[in-house]
Amino acid sequence: VRSVVLEATLAELAAGGYPALSFEGIARRAGVNKTTLYRRWGTRENLILEAMLELGRERVPIPDSGSLTQDLLEYGAAIVASNKTPEVEAIVRAVVAMGQSEPRVAEASRRFWSTRLELAGQIVERAVLRGELPPQTDANLVVEAIVGAIYFRLLMSGETLDSRFVRAVADLVAAGATSEPGVGS
Amino acid sequence: VRSVVLEATLAELAAGGYPALSFEGIARRAGVNKTTLYRRWGTRENLILEAMLELGRERVPIPDSGSLTQDLLEYGAAIVASNKTPEVEAIVRAVVAMGQSEPRVAEASRRFWSTRLELAGQIVERAVLRGELPPQTDANLVVEAIVGAIYFRLLMSGETLDSRFVRAVADLVAAGATSEPGVGS
Repeated sequence: VRSVVLEATLAELAAGGYPALSFEGIARRAGVNKTTLYRRWGTRENLILEAMLELGRERVPIPDSGSLTQDLLEYGAAIVASNKTPEVEAIVRAVVAMGQSEPRVAEASRRFWSTRLELAGQIVERAVLRGELPPQTDANLVVEAIVGAIYFRLLMSGETLDSRFVRAVADLVAAGATSEPGVGS
Repeated sequence: VRSVVLEATLAELAAGGYPALSFEGIARRAGVNKTTLYRRWGTRENLILEAMLELGRERVPIPDSGSLTQDLLEYGAAIVASNKTPEVEAIVRAVVAMGQSEPRVAEASRRFWSTRLELAGQIVERAVLRGELPPQTDANLVVEAIVGAIYFRLLMSGETLDSRFVRAVADLVAAGATSEPGVGS
């Protein structure tokens, strides 16, 4: 039941957005009784939170090509790819919408991103070990600059999120981190 | 009536978030009749859209300090400052939430950001004229890297959005744009 309901939640979110999301719609799509949803999840916010944590278990691969620019480019491309489906985009938007008024969602989102950024920080750590970057480089900052620019286009400006843009951001950030010995220190 | 209603919309959004927003709540807070709201705006999405466009008329100042890093730092600080009130944060989150299922909101958001980025591009254009940056620098990309990192912290990771972070992002992006002659070309 659980995975069917979470899938139905994502599909309903993608179809109509968070404000229109209802237990009625999810129950109909999942083919379960509405009272089952109420009893088990209580609110639609709990359902969105659980669907988000479930999706968050999918790992974005951390590239290790031997080059900082190439690794940042591949990581950015993987972020873009993982947000390609309407379901993922819908849940990201719903989590942003809930982040101010639902403290549990805000906390889950914070933990999610903190884990993701730490994992991606390996890209910077390996570049430091190779001598490409100074040891005091702020790994979080480098990753946030890539991820932030991508989500800005996806969620806010709506401008084209193509490989040319991802490459340009990766080039800019890699050049900045390489040439700026004081970054983050 | 209009400005009272738009203010009440922002206050209701900040208090309970977009999903909980209702004509009842806005009418109560604004001290107007609910039917007035229905007749004039029809849906709460129209109200949010109008409140967003109204807020969007407030200009973020474009700094002109004579230094690229300093200009980017001041611009980033102004973006942070303009998102400091719960009302502005709430409407930004609501617009993100609506961006996938409400084409008119997506289009208004795209136009809003396109205008904002073009204005802020003056920072880059002046740096090119001063010889700080190569002529082929992609002005949009430089501004998006700053703005994206700031909104990522505000809306997604929830990490501290302080002047230290804004300075680190400005340093990173300015160093990248300065040292990377091929950026955006």
